[in-house]
Amino acid sequence: MTFISQLQNAWQSNNSLLCVGLDPTPEKLPLHLREQPIERAFAEFCIGIIDATAPYACAFKPQIAYFAAHRAEAALETIIQYSRTHYPHIPVILDAKRGDIGSTAEQYAIEAFERYQADAVTVNPYMGFDSVQPYLNYTDKGVIILCRTSNAGGSDLQFLQVGETPLYQIVAHKVAHEWNTTGQCALVVGATFPNEIKEVREIVGDMPLLIPGIGAQGGDLAATMHAGQTKAGTGVMINSSRAIIYASSGENFAQAAAKIAEDTQLAINALRMV
Amino acid sequence: MTFISQLQNAWQSNNSLLCVGLDPTPEKLPLHLREQPIERAFAEFCIGIIDATAPYACAFKPQIAYFAAHRAEAALETIIQYSRTHYPHIPVILDAKRGDIGSTAEQYAIEAFERYQADAVTVNPYMGFDSVQPYLNYTDKGVIILCRTSNAGGSDLQFLQVGETPLYQIVAHKVAHEWNTTGQCALVVGATFPNEIKEVREIVGDMPLLIPGIGAQGGDLAATMHAGQTKAGTGVMINSSRAIIYASSGENFAQAAAKIAEDTQLAINALRMV
Repeated sequence: MTFISQLQNAWQSNNSLLCVGLDPTPEKLPLHLREQPIERAFAEFCIGIIDATAPYACAFKPQIAYFAAHRAEAALETIIQYSRTHYPHIPVILDAKRGDIGSTAEQYAIEAFERYQADAVTVNPYMGFDSVQPYLNYTDKGVIILCRTSNAGGSDLQFLQVGETPLYQIVAHKVAHEWNTTGQCALVVGATFPNEIKEVREIVGDMPLLIPGIGAQGGDLAATMHAGQTKAGTGVMINSSRAIIYASSGENFAQAAAKIAEDTQLAINALRMV
Repeated sequence: MTFISQLQNAWQSNNSLLCVGLDPTPEKLPLHLREQPIERAFAEFCIGIIDATAPYACAFKPQIAYFAAHRAEAALETIIQYSRTHYPHIPVILDAKRGDIGSTAEQYAIEAFERYQADAVTVNPYMGFDSVQPYLNYTDKGVIILCRTSNAGGSDLQFLQVGETPLYQIVAHKVAHEWNTTGQCALVVGATFPNEIKEVREIVGDMPLLIPGIGAQGGDLAATMHAGQTKAGTGVMINSSRAIIYASSGENFAQAAAKIAEDTQLAINALRMV
């Protein structure tokens, strides 16, 4: 099954548009896990979150930087394998934002899809189509391309005007109308700019949008959902990381995460037009 | 010592502007190393190249994708530590092209500078200044930002016209005149576009340029050196990877690499105006 089909199924079967971001940091782990070796603590923490939030999620999104900073690649392999084994209906997105020339991108595609067995990966468009192509060669996988990011500096380049059109809209056009010949692509569009989500949605039709920036980053959920959902009331993966995974630092961290995930799922669903 | 000082010293002391790229792939390793476990083969191969080419190099540039694709992070740690111990006057650039929001960029900076102990890292500008700032907080390290890349798709975004100015020149301006307040920055500018190297040089003054695309990628060395060097006859790191490291697949691979590295160093030096 392709990533896009898997995602569409997860939207329906779990009745959820919530993507749970997995960004473990040593200093924010539940207290009872902090004495363990970091690789074991990361795996136990993330598996606890996965088990607790799977009923409320349409995707999981581990951020590779948090694992790489602490020499915990093995934990990342473990949690992705765990999720795919126990929750095969929920796709795993490796948030890596890679971007390099074709021969190097081939190596990064091996990293994401063969080593880690992710169902999709995030990539950076700055180096152009041939830096994206090697990921598309894995025809069952998803390729989620940065368009408009939710951080303060996101505007530095993305909002530059190319003729009458801001750069992020050019990227949306290129992906939707030139790069996505195989239907594997999605876009990252931050929740901090709901009007811009609307513009992107108009450019890309029903293409899935991965939308970070809700929760810790302060995005407006109602405006985001209004702007981002398709006519079918789907089309988005609303990501939340810190608000869910750090809901509690006690031994009840997973239970607390489940509660926030469910609340977020319901809050999102209340804003669906279908 | 800062990366930039270290680089300037290496230009002088080794009389070289050559950066040796370390991109090991299993299927191109010397035949006698292919039977070994990949981590050991990568370490032995790269250390052989480092020892052989150190007299002719101003920098080493391992590309992390090649190690990550094959679960060989430990080999990458080993070769960087080896280079820094045995050739402390030659900086090591981790070619990673990372780019993410500030909190995640902090993790990637830990990866590059604390875990791998690299002297500099390559980063992607698409997400703007706050995605670059965390690397700059390591005040002795170098931050080498993608400007104009040498691949076919490099023009897809980088050559878009913002007003009268192509995007890559906007990036050069921003880095030189806004982001580089601490003097730690350099730029990546591909050798396939010598005229564009000239434009960038005019924008950024004496800022170091990392120039890939010579050799396997077909860049014109004479035109590149004419366009890129500073008035001091330095200012550039001319990268060569495949032409050097795969000069021979026999047991003499290191000797063959040394010969090509020396030839390249001399060819570059013959084009220096000072």
